[in-house]
Amino acid sequence: MGNTDYAYPNVDCVHRVAIPPPQPFFKSLKYSLKETFFPDDPFRKFKNQTPSKRFVLGLQYFFPIFEWAPKYTLHFFKSDFIAGITIASLAIPQGISYAKLANLPPILGLYSSFIPPLIYAMMGSSRDLAVGTVAVGSLLMASMLGRVVNFNDNPNLFLHLAFTATFFAGVFQASLGLFRLGFIVDFLSHATIVGFMGGAATVVCLQQLKSILGLDHFTHHADLISVMRSVFTQTHQWRWESAVLGCCFIFFLLVTRYFSKKQPKFFWVSAMAPLTSVILGSLLVYLTHAEKHGVQVIGQLKKGLNPPSMMDLVFVSPYMGTAIKTGLITGIIALAEGIAVGRSFAMFKNYHIDGNKEMIAIGTMNIFGSFTSCYLTTGPFSRSAVNYNAGCKTAASNIVMSIAVMLTLLFLTPLFHFTPLVVLSAIIVSAMLGLIDYQAAIHLWKIDKFDFFVCFSAYVGVVFGSVEIGLVIAVAVSLLRVLLFIARPRTFLLGNIPNSAAYRNVEQYPNANHVPGILILEIDAPIYFANASYLRERITRWIDEEEDRIKATGQTSLQYVIMDMTAVGNIDTSGISMLEEFKKTVERRGLQLVLVNPGSEVMKKLNKSKFIDELGHKWIYLTVEEAVGACNIMLQSYKPNPLKDESEGWNNA
Amino acid sequence: MGNTDYAYPNVDCVHRVAIPPPQPFFKSLKYSLKETFFPDDPFRKFKNQTPSKRFVLGLQYFFPIFEWAPKYTLHFFKSDFIAGITIASLAIPQGISYAKLANLPPILGLYSSFIPPLIYAMMGSSRDLAVGTVAVGSLLMASMLGRVVNFNDNPNLFLHLAFTATFFAGVFQASLGLFRLGFIVDFLSHATIVGFMGGAATVVCLQQLKSILGLDHFTHHADLISVMRSVFTQTHQWRWESAVLGCCFIFFLLVTRYFSKKQPKFFWVSAMAPLTSVILGSLLVYLTHAEKHGVQVIGQLKKGLNPPSMMDLVFVSPYMGTAIKTGLITGIIALAEGIAVGRSFAMFKNYHIDGNKEMIAIGTMNIFGSFTSCYLTTGPFSRSAVNYNAGCKTAASNIVMSIAVMLTLLFLTPLFHFTPLVVLSAIIVSAMLGLIDYQAAIHLWKIDKFDFFVCFSAYVGVVFGSVEIGLVIAVAVSLLRVLLFIARPRTFLLGNIPNSAAYRNVEQYPNANHVPGILILEIDAPIYFANASYLRERITRWIDEEEDRIKATGQTSLQYVIMDMTAVGNIDTSGISMLEEFKKTVERRGLQLVLVNPGSEVMKKLNKSKFIDELGHKWIYLTVEEAVGACNIMLQSYKPNPLKDESEGWNNA
Repeated sequence: MGNTDYAYPNVDCVHRVAIPPPQPFFKSLKYSLKETFFPDDPFRKFKNQTPSKRFVLGLQYFFPIFEWAPKYTLHFFKSDFIAGITIASLAIPQGISYAKLANLPPILGLYSSFIPPLIYAMMGSSRDLAVGTVAVGSLLMASMLGRVVNFNDNPNLFLHLAFTATFFAGVFQASLGLFRLGFIVDFLSHATIVGFMGGAATVVCLQQLKSILGLDHFTHHADLISVMRSVFTQTHQWRWESAVLGCCFIFFLLVTRYFSKKQPKFFWVSAMAPLTSVILGSLLVYLTHAEKHGVQVIGQLKKGLNPPSMMDLVFVSPYMGTAIKTGLITGIIALAEGIAVGRSFAMFKNYHIDGNKEMIAIGTMNIFGSFTSCYLTTGPFSRSAVNYNAGCKTAASNIVMSIAVMLTLLFLTPLFHFTPLVVLSAIIVSAMLGLIDYQAAIHLWKIDKFDFFVCFSAYVGVVFGSVEIGLVIAVAVSLLRVLLFIARPRTFLLGNIPNSAAYRNVEQYPNANHVPGILILEIDAPIYFANASYLRERITRWIDEEEDRIKATGQTSLQYVIMDMTAVGNIDTSGISMLEEFKKTVERRGLQLVLVNPGSEVMKKLNKSKFIDELGHKWIYLTVEEAVGACNIMLQSYKPNPLKDESEGWNNA
Repeated sequence: MGNTDYAYPNVDCVHRVAIPPPQPFFKSLKYSLKETFFPDDPFRKFKNQTPSKRFVLGLQYFFPIFEWAPKYTLHFFKSDFIAGITIASLAIPQGISYAKLANLPPILGLYSSFIPPLIYAMMGSSRDLAVGTVAVGSLLMASMLGRVVNFNDNPNLFLHLAFTATFFAGVFQASLGLFRLGFIVDFLSHATIVGFMGGAATVVCLQQLKSILGLDHFTHHADLISVMRSVFTQTHQWRWESAVLGCCFIFFLLVTRYFSKKQPKFFWVSAMAPLTSVILGSLLVYLTHAEKHGVQVIGQLKKGLNPPSMMDLVFVSPYMGTAIKTGLITGIIALAEGIAVGRSFAMFKNYHIDGNKEMIAIGTMNIFGSFTSCYLTTGPFSRSAVNYNAGCKTAASNIVMSIAVMLTLLFLTPLFHFTPLVVLSAIIVSAMLGLIDYQAAIHLWKIDKFDFFVCFSAYVGVVFGSVEIGLVIAVAVSLLRVLLFIARPRTFLLGNIPNSAAYRNVEQYPNANHVPGILILEIDAPIYFANASYLRERITRWIDEEEDRIKATGQTSLQYVIMDMTAVGNIDTSGISMLEEFKKTVERRGLQLVLVNPGSEVMKKLNKSKFIDELGHKWIYLTVEEAVGACNIMLQSYKPNPLKDESEGWNNA
């Protein structure tokens, strides 16, 4: 039965499923492109404005300083001044430390805290981001550039490659923003970032064993096994003076951080601790002449502001590939951190951050940075958190920090001559320990095992392989999850919720009632090439199981297969072929296929491909309730089909 | 209002959304693995059987011949005999032609139609597949192996590499089947295959210009531009005798095919045409001695059955990489064709094909083929269609063909001495023209523009780049579509369908009614890291637009945002964070978030992450109808919130 043409049951409450009117191709293309690239509708404000107003709005779009500067008050300045001085006291020792981590001259850390914050203050839309260099970016740069150029043998070339990589990172970041491709950053999921950051922090800490143990020779590899081998084959070279000093400072820094965490009012204790360590360490070395007893110091730091470096960019073929690759990878990692940090604080203060605009700001600041002897900068979490806690109101705190660093560059650099390297390592280690977010990993395990797996593979990839390997593995595993969702969509058996017209998954609602003679299935994903044959097999299995069950219990034999298409967001031509084949298979078994609530996109395609005509529009219902009602009326009016039993034989043949 | 704790409205019809009971980790892991790798439940038959019965079933699983042979009748044999002879008459000339296309000795085409069909007849589960070599596989092998070894300079090494590649293709195919990874083939969508096959057919036709125009020198590249340059720089070398002969035979073959298509009863006319052409062509050359006037002929063919080639496999490092790569790519292409063909005919005759089992059969036949001087075989569409039309009943038609080819190898090879190459080219061209399925491409354009784009890029990639480039582009574009579906899910505004309790997309149902004070949204995809920030921005935009509309029309101000989660199949930790943030944003604007019908997976995770506690279980409803009912009751009991207007100021700040 089923496929013969019965009169349409006369049920008043039946509503038709609408076929949306055909849309011109270019209109729908324009709509999809708009949703893909302009989901936040940035032109909304510009509508119905005069040209001059539009110009002002455009200027304010690219330079938010024109938006907040006119409203700036003395009250804001007080807050920003305190915040700026606080982050400067953190920026100076951190900048020097991270530059050492990147195998670059320490002074670059100060340069990088002078120019880029000024640019960000003009272009950035975050009020809380504090600009500076980051440990992970520095490490990545050292390891990726270190593969083609040894920084000991050829420090100048290494330095110029770092500027070039920074330039490409900036160009890449700004273009992502300009071409509205910011969503690429979204593919680095929270789980990926937790695992990746934890792994990178572990690797950075391991690298610090060199200066903490006072070793002269050290592996150039960053993975756990190489570092451990390097450390434990040189046990006779360990310098206890250096190790004791390092442990003391790490302990001091961790204690101050713990204290500030418990007492948020005293945020400045932990913010000032690095500078205090530097001063204490330098004094200690100066007084005890420890630099002559195996404690390495920074040495001479050049006085003066950033020299121009535009002519130092290297665009020669043997190195350019590496510079571009380094720029791309460090650029995207830096972006991910900067934007995540900006967004988090914006959420706390309830204002909005435009990801694409932020990318343009961060990219421009790196391009200009590469022209003025700076290397890769972004908005590091630790510094921005201090900025936020210190009560910053606008990006002006970055200007204050920048001026403080400028004054340091002009007058105070000689003071860092005796700063021991081990103090810098202690600063790095204490900052990195905060990035190993094991609690987040436990949280992931509790809520979503797959996310934990992504996080874990990123961590293991970074620690045992390299930073890039970890990143690639984590992104691949994350994408695999998306593909698996599509390739293996879930299908559910629906039953009627008692005292209600709703039909729901019987596994979730064990009290839902089975409807005799009717199999109601829900498909939970779009029907695409990747899952079409799986769905055919899975649905056939549902029918087999239902018929087995019916045979065993002797209930009314199966007559209708209702497919709830509510959650089928889209279908492609492979999916339509599958439906056509499935319809034939079902009919050969003497069953009738009924569709419920296909969405507009699905209806449009089913209509174009004539599937609706083949199936009959009367077999498509708006709700499961109406479909079941109509089927029940027909079940009562007609006897079971004699062909039915034979058809099962066909299936087993 | 909203977020304060009102008494739960006393509505009798309200049903709770169930939180599924927690499942042990290993149980759910086992379930997912089963659904991923065993969706067709192959062990179903083995349940509750005695060990001896299980052994028989297992044997029948791997060797379906034990299933059908005992039931074999004389009636079946008559049909299979006719079909077998028909496909043999096609297989012999096609085999020789495709071996030439692969730059292999022509005799290999006959060898490959002798052993592999016998193995497939035992192991294959299709009743209609006719085994043999294929043009695309042959071309791919020639071009990929040709990059490391010139077949003119070193024909033996080239031959041995072809056997090795066939061996690896077989191993790869069989392992895919054994490890239940058959779904990888599903990632080659119908659109990809249409474009890819059309492109490959174009490239193969272009290659035939060499022998049709009688050119001695020809480019080793396969792309359109190289071939056209090669042809048109040698206009003075064109041989008109050859060209005229070629065109005549192409015309003859196309006419017979057209006739058979119009009159399916005379399928044998087009099936016999290639053999007829070979006989006619050979006679013509023999009688006119055209081989002395520039018409190239096959020449000596060795008499006798397949020599063993097991010792010829090359496992030496410089070539093994190429052999493995060639094996992988040709193997997967051959699988895709064989399985698609098997499935299509199984659908016509309504029996079931197990993809993984087919892969084991095709893989084994290639492994044994590589031991017996055969190269890559699969189930070509053209030959299988002839087999089907000739009325084959079981795989025994392959055995008949195999015996016919064996007899040819033993006694008839000298007859092919004078066969002109141009006839073989004509046979290839006429077969290939059938593969350029422009109608399918038009169908794709009409139904699904994106599928057309996939198809088009595969075609262009193959014709202007290479077969591999086309394949990679098409798969990448197909995957991009899946990722875009997740990265940019659609969201809909829902309205009440008049005279019904259903709420549907207002774009699809323009008569659906808006509910004052309540914004009802539907999300059409799982909430994952890749779309979390997009969804936040998009939903915020929906709220902004709704508030703008309300301001403009002066309706009841917005109080509730209902999110229908029916189509949200899953959520990850990034998605949960997004929901948490979104809830806060919504509350700051003085609105209440309401969820409707989250599925079991989503409820489980929302519960574990405490989101349900934060939101309040009372704000989660089973149906949109109940949610709207409850909101309406509260809307009537309470006045609008005075905070409301202020909150909009926050948003714009």
